[in-house]
This record gives sequence, C-alpha cells and structure tokens, in this order.
Amino acid sequence: MDTTNGKLNRKLNMALIGGGAGSFIGRVHATAAVLDNRAALVAGALSSNPERAKASAPSYDIKENRAYTSIDELIAKESKLPEGERVDFVSVATPNFTHFELAKKAVEAGFNVICDKPMTFDLDQAEDLLKTVEASGVVFAVSHNYTGYPLVRQAREMILSGELGEIQAIRSNYIQGWLRSRLEEEDQKQAAWRTDPKKSGAAGAFGDIATHAYNLGRYMTGLLPEEISCNLKVFVPGRQLDDYGHAVVRFENGALGTVTASQISHGRENDLFIEIDGTKGAIQWRQEEPNQMIVRCNGEPHKIYTRDPNASFMNGMGAAACRLPAGHPEAFFEAFGNVYRSAYDAMVARATGESFEKKETIYPNVYDGVEGMYFIQQCVASSSENGAWLPMKHPAARR
Amino acid sequence: MDTTNGKLNRKLNMALIGGGAGSFIGRVHATAAVLDNRAALVAGALSSNPERAKASAPSYDIKENRAYTSIDELIAKESKLPEGERVDFVSVATPNFTHFELAKKAVEAGFNVICDKPMTFDLDQAEDLLKTVEASGVVFAVSHNYTGYPLVRQAREMILSGELGEIQAIRSNYIQGWLRSRLEEEDQKQAAWRTDPKKSGAAGAFGDIATHAYNLGRYMTGLLPEEISCNLKVFVPGRQLDDYGHAVVRFENGALGTVTASQISHGRENDLFIEIDGTKGAIQWRQEEPNQMIVRCNGEPHKIYTRDPNASFMNGMGAAACRLPAGHPEAFFEAFGNVYRSAYDAMVARATGESFEKKETIYPNVYDGVEGMYFIQQCVASSSENGAWLPMKHPAARR
Amino acid sequence: MDTTNGKLNRKLNMALIGGGAGSFIGRVHATAAVLDNRAALVAGALSSNPERAKASAPSYDIKENRAYTSIDELIAKESKLPEGERVDFVSVATPNFTHFELAKKAVEAGFNVICDKPMTFDLDQAEDLLKTVEASGVVFAVSHNYTGYPLVRQAREMILSGELGEIQAIRSNYIQGWLRSRLEEEDQKQAAWRTDPKKSGAAGAFGDIATHAYNLGRYMTGLLPEEISCNLKVFVPGRQLDDYGHAVVRFENGALGTVTASQISHGRENDLFIEIDGTKGAIQWRQEEPNQMIVRCNGEPHKIYTRDPNASFMNGMGAAACRLPAGHPEAFFEAFGNVYRSAYDAMVARATGESFEKKETIYPNVYDGVEGMYFIQQCVASSSENGAWLPMKHPAARR
Amino acid sequence: MDTTNGKLNRKLNMALIGGGAGSFIGRVHATAAVLDNRAALVAGALSSNPERAKASAPSYDIKENRAYTSIDELIAKESKLPEGERVDFVSVATPNFTHFELAKKAVEAGFNVICDKPMTFDLDQAEDLLKTVEASGVVFAVSHNYTGYPLVRQAREMILSGELGEIQAIRSNYIQGWLRSRLEEEDQKQAAWRTDPKKSGAAGAFGDIATHAYNLGRYMTGLLPEEISCNLKVFVPGRQLDDYGHAVVRFENGALGTVTASQISHGRENDLFIEIDGTKGAIQWRQEEPNQMIVRCNGEPHKIYTRDPNASFMNGMGAAACRLPAGHPEAFFEAFGNVYRSAYDAMVARATGESFEKKETIYPNVYDGVEGMYFIQQCVASSSENGAWLPMKHPAARR
Repeated sequence: MDTTNGKLNRKLNMALIGGGAGSFIGRVHATAAVLDNRAALVAGALSSNPERAKASAPSYDIKENRAYTSIDELIAKESKLPEGERVDFVSVATPNFTHFELAKKAVEAGFNVICDKPMTFDLDQAEDLLKTVEASGVVFAVSHNYTGYPLVRQAREMILSGELGEIQAIRSNYIQGWLRSRLEEEDQKQAAWRTDPKKSGAAGAFGDIATHAYNLGRYMTGLLPEEISCNLKVFVPGRQLDDYGHAVVRFENGALGTVTASQISHGRENDLFIEIDGTKGAIQWRQEEPNQMIVRCNGEPHKIYTRDPNASFMNGMGAAACRLPAGHPEAFFEAFGNVYRSAYDAMVARATGESFEKKETIYPNVYDGVEGMYFIQQCVASSSENGAWLPMKHPAARR
Repeated sequence: MDTTNGKLNRKLNMALIGGGAGSFIGRVHATAAVLDNRAALVAGALSSNPERAKASAPSYDIKENRAYTSIDELIAKESKLPEGERVDFVSVATPNFTHFELAKKAVEAGFNVICDKPMTFDLDQAEDLLKTVEASGVVFAVSHNYTGYPLVRQAREMILSGELGEIQAIRSNYIQGWLRSRLEEEDQKQAAWRTDPKKSGAAGAFGDIATHAYNLGRYMTGLLPEEISCNLKVFVPGRQLDDYGHAVVRFENGALGTVTASQISHGRENDLFIEIDGTKGAIQWRQEEPNQMIVRCNGEPHKIYTRDPNASFMNGMGAAACRLPAGHPEAFFEAFGNVYRSAYDAMVARATGESFEKKETIYPNVYDGVEGMYFIQQCVASSSENGAWLPMKHPAARR
Repeated sequence: MDTTNGKLNRKLNMALIGGGAGSFIGRVHATAAVLDNRAALVAGALSSNPERAKASAPSYDIKENRAYTSIDELIAKESKLPEGERVDFVSVATPNFTHFELAKKAVEAGFNVICDKPMTFDLDQAEDLLKTVEASGVVFAVSHNYTGYPLVRQAREMILSGELGEIQAIRSNYIQGWLRSRLEEEDQKQAAWRTDPKKSGAAGAFGDIATHAYNLGRYMTGLLPEEISCNLKVFVPGRQLDDYGHAVVRFENGALGTVTASQISHGRENDLFIEIDGTKGAIQWRQEEPNQMIVRCNGEPHKIYTRDPNASFMNGMGAAACRLPAGHPEAFFEAFGNVYRSAYDAMVARATGESFEKKETIYPNVYDGVEGMYFIQQCVASSSENGAWLPMKHPAARR
Repeated sequence: MDTTNGKLNRKLNMALIGGGAGSFIGRVHATAAVLDNRAALVAGALSSNPERAKASAPSYDIKENRAYTSIDELIAKESKLPEGERVDFVSVATPNFTHFELAKKAVEAGFNVICDKPMTFDLDQAEDLLKTVEASGVVFAVSHNYTGYPLVRQAREMILSGELGEIQAIRSNYIQGWLRSRLEEEDQKQAAWRTDPKKSGAAGAFGDIATHAYNLGRYMTGLLPEEISCNLKVFVPGRQLDDYGHAVVRFENGALGTVTASQISHGRENDLFIEIDGTKGAIQWRQEEPNQMIVRCNGEPHKIYTRDPNASFMNGMGAAACRLPAGHPEAFFEAFGNVYRSAYDAMVARATGESFEKKETIYPNVYDGVEGMYFIQQCVASSSENGAWLPMKHPAARR
C-alpha cells in the first residue's frame, strides 16, 4: 500500500456523481475508493437536484466550492484547476439511464471514469461510449465489484493458467429476495428506479444482477460466448420488468453455462454463487462467504482455499488482492476497493506518461461494459422470442 | 414400527431381482427393505447369469431352493406356495433395459413390485407397464428414493398445504463427478451399463440422475409441467450418452423450473440440491446433508428445520418418516426404507382386502415412472432439436 | 457383507434385554444389530414388567416362547437350546442401574454381551464385571456407538499411525438441550431415569454423554490420561444430578484435554464435536455431520475428508466401516451397527474356536467400560472437591 | 455517517504510534480509523527507530513535519498547534511492553487514546494507567476489536435486555495455528515480540488472544467473574511463553465459563468462537463468519440471524453497527472501525463540552484493559499453582 501512488507522488483526486441522500451505491464508491488512502474524494455532483447536491456534500467532507450541481459545472470548474488539485477521475454512481451522458462527458473532458453497472441504458449507448473511450486515452472501469474479491482473482489466474483444465460448465446464480413485494410502491428509492423501465433499461433483475453473474463467469474463465437463450419472468403482479430469469449460454469451446437471477426468493440476500467445472478440477465460490473457495478434484479430499495472502497455494493475483492475513475476514468494501485499486495503477501510469493495458485489464472495463449491455439486450430479445437462441459474440468482447 | 404389519399379522416376503456380485443398488434394496423388520428377503433371482444367481444367494441369506435363476422360474415356483409363505413383492434392481420385462411379468403374476428408476428403457414400455399395473391391482412403487427423506416429505406437506404460497421457481441440481474419466473402459460394472445406450436407454446422466432431480421437484411441489427445453452434452470424449445436461421447465401455473445434472464435476459426490421459491416462503434442501432444511421468509431470520420428530414445526408427513430423535442423523438407507415402508402400507391393505390409493401415493408409483420416461424422451428430443420447447404434459401424470 | 458369518455358516442369534414400550435405545440396538443381516433377533426380556415384556415381543418379531420375563428365565431356557438355535449374544439396553446384574449373569452363563454405556452403576460393579469377563472368555462390547462412525475410525488409524504427529490437545464437547426444562417431572421416561441418582448413578450429563465425549477422544488418539479436574453444575432447579459440566484432562504425554457436556443448551440436539491437535496436523469431526471430517495442516488448504470407501485418502479402518459410496450419507444406525459388526467378528472367532483380541479391539470393550466408570467417579469426586486434580490412570485402561 | 462529527463540524485528527515497516496492526488502525471519514490520520511516531519513523510516513500520507520520532516530540509539537489542527487522539499500536509509557504520556498531555490490547505489560501498569485516565477526563478505548462486530453488539443487547434469560454457560475459544513452528526464530517480527516475555508480558497466547476471548464473553453477557483456574502449556520446544492454554471461570451468578486459546492448531487461522447458553435461549457466533449468528430455542427451528440493518429482528446496537445491507458482507476492518466510531462519539462529546459515559461504554475502555491484565496475571498465577482457583473480581471491573 503506497498512498503516494509511486512516481505520481500524490493521492488521486476523486469526484463522485450521485450518492445523495437515499443512495446506497454512492456511499459504497466513496468508501471503497479511499480504503487504501491512494485517493481522496474532493469533489462531487451528488444529486440531479441542485439543493440536495449541495446539502449532501458535508457528509462526504466535500468542500462547498467543489459541491457541483451538474456534470457540466463539475467539468467546467475542475478543468480549470491545475493538475494535482484537479479531479483525476469521476465515479458515476447514479441510476442506469443517466450513466451514458455523465460518463461520456467526463471521458470527453479527459477525466478517467469509474462507472457503475450496467454501463448504460442500452447497447447503442454502450457502443457509442466505447468509441469515445477508445478515442480518449482515459482509464475507464466498470464496477463489476465482485471481480475484486481475492479468491475470484485467484480462481481467474488458476483457470487462465490451465490449472483446472478445459472449462466445460459454468453455473452462476444471483439470488435475492428484496423485491418479493412491490417495494417500488412504497417510496423505496432503490426499488423505484430499478423497476422502472425508463430508468433501469430493458431488464430488471437481469440488468441489475444477472449482469454481475454473467460477468463473473466470463471474468473467472475467459471463455467466449457463442449464443444465448433466455427466459425472463415477472412474478410480482404489476411490475413491468423481470424479477426472475434464467439464461443458457453456449460458449465457443463447447462449454455450457447457466445464469439464474432472482429478486423474489424469500429471505435470500445477495447470494451470488458460482460453480465452474474443468477437466482437471472444479471450483465453487459464494459471495456471502467470500473468504473461502472450494476446489475439488476426483480422488482427493475437497480443498477449502481460504483467503490467505501468505499461503503457497495462493497465486499472484489472489495474494495481491488481500489486505489482511488469513482468518481476518475481508469483505464487500475491500473487494470493491480492489477494482478501484487496479484502476488506480492504470491512472497512475497514464498520469506519469507510461503505457498501460486497456482491454485485458484486471479490472472490468468498457469492453466488459459493452458485453454486459449486449447480454441484457440479447436476453430480453431471446425471452420475447420464446427463448430462441441468439448470438452472443460481440466484436468488442475481451478475448 | 410394527413388524407384524397390523391386521396382516406377519412380515411381508420379498424377492430380489438383481443384486449379484458387483451390484450396488441391489444391496441397498435388500438393506432398506428390511430396516424396520416389516419384511424379510426370502427369495431372489440375483443375476441373469444362473451360476452367479445361485452363488450370490448365501450373502443375502436366501435359501438355496428359493435362489432362482430367472424371473420365470421365480414366478412359477413362488406362485405355488401358500400365501404367507409366498413372496408378496418383487424388487427389481437390475440395469434399466431389463426392468420392463421383469416388472411386467411380476405384475401379471399378481406380485407387488418395487422397481428401480428409470422405470423402463423407453416411454412405450412405461405406458405398456402402466396399463398392466392398472389392470392388475398390485402395488407398484418406483424407487425415487430421495422422496423418502423426512424433510423432503415435510416440505411436500408444507407446500401442498400452502405454507409457502404459490410456487414460482424450482432449481433442482444433481451434480456428480464419478464419470469424469471413462470408467466404463475400466471394467467398472456400474459405469459400463450406465453409459451404454443399449442398456441404459436414450439418456445417460439425464436418465440416471436428472430423473431424480426432476421427480424431486414434482414430488415436493405438485406443480404440473407444461413444456420443456433441454440441452445435453457429452463432455468425455468417446462416450455415447450425455454426461451433463440442463433443462428448463415451464409449469402450468407459470412457474419456471431448471434441472441440471452432471456426472463430470470433479470431486462432487451425490449432490442432489433443490431450492423452491414460493410467494410466502422459500426452502432449500441438500441430499448430502439431509437432516436439515433451510426455510426462509423475508424479514425473518433464516430458519433451519432439523429432522426432529418431536418438534412442533414438523408436520405429519415429516415426523412420520423419522426413526430417530433430532441430532441422531438418519440418512440414505432410512430414506430408501421409507419408500418401502409406505409401499408396505398399501401392500398390507391389498393383502387384507382394504382399498388403497393408487395414484396420489406417498411413495413414487407407476405414474411417476411414466412421467420420468416421458421426461427422458422429451429431454433427448429437445436437445436433438437445438433445445426446442416440447410438451411435458403427459396424460398419466399425477395431478 | 456376508450373512453367513464365514466359517460359522449361519447368522448369529441375538437376545435383547430392555426395549419395551417407551424405550429409545432398545429399538436402536435391535435395528443396528441386524443391519447387515449377520444376526437375527430371536429372543428377549424386553421389560422388567412381565406383562410388558410379553406384549412388546411382537413388535420385534420375537416369538412368544422366546419372549422371556427375566434374565434368569432367558438364561435357563436358552442354555438348553442347541448351538445354532441358542442365543449367541445378549444386548443389554436397560437403565444404568440394572446393567451390572444383567450383564454379569449373561457372561457367567457364557453368552457374549453387548452392553449399553455407562457400563454399570458404579466403578466397583465395573471392576467386578471386568473380572467376570476376563474369567469367561466371552466377547464383551460396550456401545460407545460413536466410535463406529467410519471417519472416527479413519481418524483413529491416522493418529495411531503417526500421521498427525504427537497429539497435544483434545477438545471434546457433547452439547444437548433436551433437559433444559424438567422433563423428568412430565412423565418422560427417558428423562426420568437419567436424572434419578438411584437409576442413573453418580452423574447425570457426565454419565450419559460426557462418557461418550471422553471415550471418543481416548478412542481416536490412544492417549493415556494422567489426572483430571472437573466442575459439575446443576442448572435446572430441583434436579439432583449434573446437567452441565466441564473436565480438564492431563494426559501422560503432556497433552491437555477438555471435555464439556451439556443437557441445557437451548436448541442443541446431539452435538458431539471433537477437535484434535497434533504436531503434524489437526482434525475436527462433528457427529451431526458425520460424513465429513476436516483435516488441516499449516500452509495447505483445509481438507474435507468425506466418507468415501473408494478414495485413496481413506485408510483401512475407515474404508472398512463404510457401506455406501461417497455422497450417499451414512449415519447413526450404521455407526451403531459397526460396533456390532466388529464384535461379531470376535464372536465368530470364538464360536469357531479361533483366538481373538480381547483388549485392543476395534469395538469398545469391558476395559473401556471400566475406564468410563472411573471417569465418572473421578469427575464427581473432583467436582465435590472444588475441582481438585485426581488421578485418572486406571490399571485396566487400554494402552 | 457524518464526516463533520455533528456539532464539532470537522474531522478528528489522529496520530499513530507504531505502524512502521513490518507492522500488522498499525496499518489496521490506520485503515479502520478513517473508514467513515470521521477522522484523518495527520501525525505519527511510526517507529522507535527514528529513521524508520520518518521513512514510513509517506505510506500513511503523513506530512514530513508531523512524522515524529518519539511520543515526546509528538506531544511537544502537537500541543502547540491550535485545536482543530492539533491531534485529537493517539492510537497506540506498538508491542505490549511499550503501551504503558506511550499511553500514559498521551493521556497526561490531554490527548484521547486508542490503545491496543493487552493494555499494558502488567497489572501494576494497568492500574496506574487507570488512575491517570480517571484523573484526566480523556476518552480512552482499548482495541478489543471483536466487540465491534454488529452481531456481537446485537447479542450484547439481546442478553442485557434479558432475551436469553439468565446466562449459565459461556464457551469461548480462540484457536490459531501460526505459531505451530518457531517462527520467532525466523526473523518474523510479529512472532518475535509476541513470544518474548520481555516484550509481550507474562503470557503468550493468553495475553495475545485469550484476552480477546475472555473479553468477548464479558462484553456480550455482562456477567461478573468470581474466580478462575487456568492451565497453560508451552507445546513448541524452546518457546518461553504459553502457546496453548485453558481457563475455567466461575461467574458470580453461578454460571460456568471456559476460555481456550491456541496458537499451535494446524491450519486454524483466527478462529474466535463463542457459545452462550441462557435459560431462555442460546447463541453462537464465529469471527471468521461474522455476518451470521445462530440463535436457538428448544422446540423452534434454529435461527440464523444475518447482519441485516433493516430486519426487525435486529436491535438498536446491532443495526447501528452496520454499514451495508444484508448479504453485502462486512468484516474485520468494519468491526475495528466500529470501536473507533463509538469512541469518536465520546471524543466529540468531550470536545464540545458535553458529558459522556466513561465506564459503561459501547467500546472497550480502560476498565476492560485493567480487567484484561488482571485476567492475564491470574491465569499465569493459577497455572503456576497447578490450576488453583484464584479470585477474578477486580474492583475496577465494569458492572
């Protein structure tokens, strides 16, 4: 941990978009981003409501003169500040339908961006944003935060290095229960925009959480999808967007994947759970117990890999993502912070004029963001066509 | 527990078909059937090989003169014995392709039958057998043994009584790893016939274990299927039948079900796992830890129902299936024995001239057997048609 | 599995003492003893009440003429029967205060005995019985049934062979909650005699369950105790015997052991749990999840040994105690049956005139029974002397 | 979360003592203290080695002019700064033998203190420090960080409000394995001082971790100890301080407690585990899976309380300690931060001239620190007297 960011010799400056009263994910971004003291939150446009934007600033320790009321004001004023004082990156933590405009403006102004997922409202926006990012040279990360867990990264390196052999099956589930009733009718802000097709996009559960489940399988295995078949359901009467759904994914190498997402399973909290079968071994990981991963091989005892930065069974990516010794659990904030931390490495490289990887990054990036939007689009389309197989090979996908 | 079988005032007499050297399931039947001392194994046709049939008898304590070499001999000789001495029921524990002939002859001769699953080689045989059974008046059970677990029956009663509300989703998985390599090439008898389409039938993993997973969801919820889409895979090179597969089931009430079966997941043993979501509550149960079931309801702590015959939270079906107090674990044999025990109640009724339910039974029966064969047929057909939706409403299904 | 018992060429004949209506453990003995069809229950003295003794016989399928009303009648009549028809062994499944007389008479009459634990009412009786057994040549087993679990035996062989190095710590707990209220006042037969010092002996929880916990540690490690300090508590007002207690054991090799027993821990069922630390490795096993054992070694992933008779990590004792493949759970009855099964091997040896081990047996024996009574005596004495250290080296202990 | 600290209207200023290269706990303090942005780390005396003290500052983002080389320099220079710029509190994160001098000087200079545990080198120092604190009016917290877990606080409120009835038994274990080998010989800084009686104090494992286990039981139940009996072991040859030990605690109300600590259990990481039995209910909590607590009551399903700030089953203390919704796991840093956060409330009160509780605080304080040192002293003494019962009632204990 080096708060000076090496050659940069200073902390990075962060601006937060969103995060006003009632927000959940804005506070998470603010906490995770500074966990290692490599960045400081110095500016924000915390709400689309100017008064709320101003009023929310003190709770983030943002000075009044950098509590902006719009992205435009933020860009205009921050751009005039000298480097080192100026914001280095903008975190977009607003409802989905606003991501595109906010992120695009920030990118065009030369700011690095950490954008919440799903990246945009629809695929067109995502492809447009991709072009903007590619033209800009900025660092652009998408907060598929579950990729930041040390054991997820451990698994990724194990799989990419061939330790599990050829991957043949992925079963990825994201099961929640909080939308079992129509919270959106009860003035619950989180529920309200997520179930509103004008704010959330074409999908409900599939946009909000199946994208994470799909992304996690892709991140851990690197397998490339070929086609997808999906069935979405709206189980709670009166709701407009899917609150349950299931997709089957055929991968290029012949592997079969399944993605299930639910927001209506009583008592389930945030149960992102993945199982991956390879020809040489298999793994299983659950977000709610993130400090352990089960690794199995026929004829051997089941092995529990605990998050242990000092253990010889941990590989480089896994160990590097740890902050605490084994048995001292790490959790959600730390994983979220790891996405930031990895993006910081790239931001520092950019700031100091060094080259940096843009596509095959440790952190989820704009290419993953495009693929996530493609996933949503194809799932919704397949479901409306009775589960027809639709292509899932997007030219921008990482490979 | 009453070894006299009530009004019958004697133990029931059992004959075992199959179970010779190298058999697995024959020994299980023999052990489970007599667990409560309500039946005695007195006769057998333990192998299709006459010498092995004779040689295997002592290990079952079957007398030499009742160690038959064929079903025909068994029927011919047992039929001449007086009631009380004569075999009451025949357990068919042979490879799939022989079930039909054996079971049909036994039924036609008036013997009750406990038949292993899948019930027959194909659907035609199953429908034929159904007619034979309906015409006969015998008790006919199919050993979907996982339905015998106390907490499975507890769940069934909870759901049928409406405790979980309307059921909207079933996720049923049966994950094994033992066929990860080509055991069938290594003179492993269990693997050999299960992977041979001439002996196993149209499906591999889907016939052997997905039928259990599908049946379990049907048993626990009573939901009626409407249509099914399936994707089967042969992952181990050289194998002829599926060793992995996935099906999506649409139920008549709009619920969505998924069934996944694997025989190639490293280190996984016999992981039959089911989750059921209802509008009022949700449950989760795992065969490898059968003495507990998790019941969840939003806003309440997660509840672990342990198998506790004395607890007020246990219902009639659940408590009646227990033999031991809580904390004294019951397991595979006891559950298997519960299928037998429930069938015995019907056999005693028949023997004493009382009426007994034939379709909506506690134990899986010939109707479930037919539906299981229909499931296999439609899954294989759907998979060969690129996962097309095929009907899953069989006229014989329980409802 | 060989129901002919090899050279003996017949099943063993069993008589059950106790097990009348309201009994729990009698039925367990009857079920476990015949699980492998190596024995048949042919006689009994099922209750000290002659009418109940007679009335209970049909539920065990015991013929009327062998439903005796006392041990004396049983011995007198069975002794006159020819070998092969005559009872081979007597299972004593009555309240503690009757064990001694029943077992001693059976032994003196030349019958093998399986005696419930604790073996007698007090140590004097135990030492007397030991002499009787030593003089007799009979097979004598004590039903410390938890030693029959496959993974317990696996652990024993691992430890005795040095796989875990020198053993330095044992933490053994047996936690129940069923006597949280005064069930003994509510006509609950099990509770009534267990809490009555005239029937149970000097200890309550420590006699009923701490003996199991202590025995399990001794069985798994072979460590020899040096001295013991104990604190017993009566937490439920009005009760006469301990319902909670804790002992510290110093072993000869310097290891430190702890034994905790509770009958008053809300919601706890039958939670016998043991952890053992060696210089090379450590293990952990829990009776309520008996099909897995955790084995740990610094620097390695935690390993879950599942009960898998075919796995190379299983040793001879562990694999030999299995009846089913991995993932097909075994449980309480099977473990109980393993104690019987091991004793049967000795009985067959005796019956066929072969020599057999009497002290270092796989099954718990009369020496363990004596040590168990010594444990109870010293714990009660230590507790009454403010936890003073008392000797725990009994000359009869296995070593 | 209010980074302005309410009426104080600014962040609190922190100085860190210790935390130089090779430190573990210093970094934890630095991270946890600022997690909610209510404090900023502005100064430090990071090492007793002046060069290392200076060199370590940038990695904490401490400016050069506030990177002091001793507590004396820190006090001298900080005292001259105006309030608001001046350090508000000093975190002492050094080896045990230095705590007393550092903390005492800070307190005497009027700074609030967060002191690592055990609080001092011996009891005399602790009692001296207590007097100093009482005379000073500063806020003084001891980092028994495990008390900061939301479900620990939830349990505390449940118990203190009588929800579990009278508490009768506490079983508290803290099991580690990292000192299984003599790491102290291998230039491992953490191991070196912890096993050195000149730096660690009279106890090894019992000072380092049994104090946490003991404190946790005291914190959760409020039971007052009466006397204690202890057995300490040095299992690794050549080591001077205990690496394993066990204590029995008699509480004033008749309850029985046990505390076990190990540093030599292979593969065990940081397994602090507690079970508490009350007359109305029982709970169980494990630090390595901190987001759930099991609550049991006879006759009811076992209940898993998950850390869910929005659930009605959570009480005020439990919910107030959460930062994230259920299913989004919180862990070690957050719990550590909760101790800080609670202390901040008192610091803000002091700074704004309001009264604040000094003894019955939510955070562990100097009274707990004294009791911890008394616990160590009496355990070591009891162990050296063959486990004799020694008094455990310290006049300064919270009650």
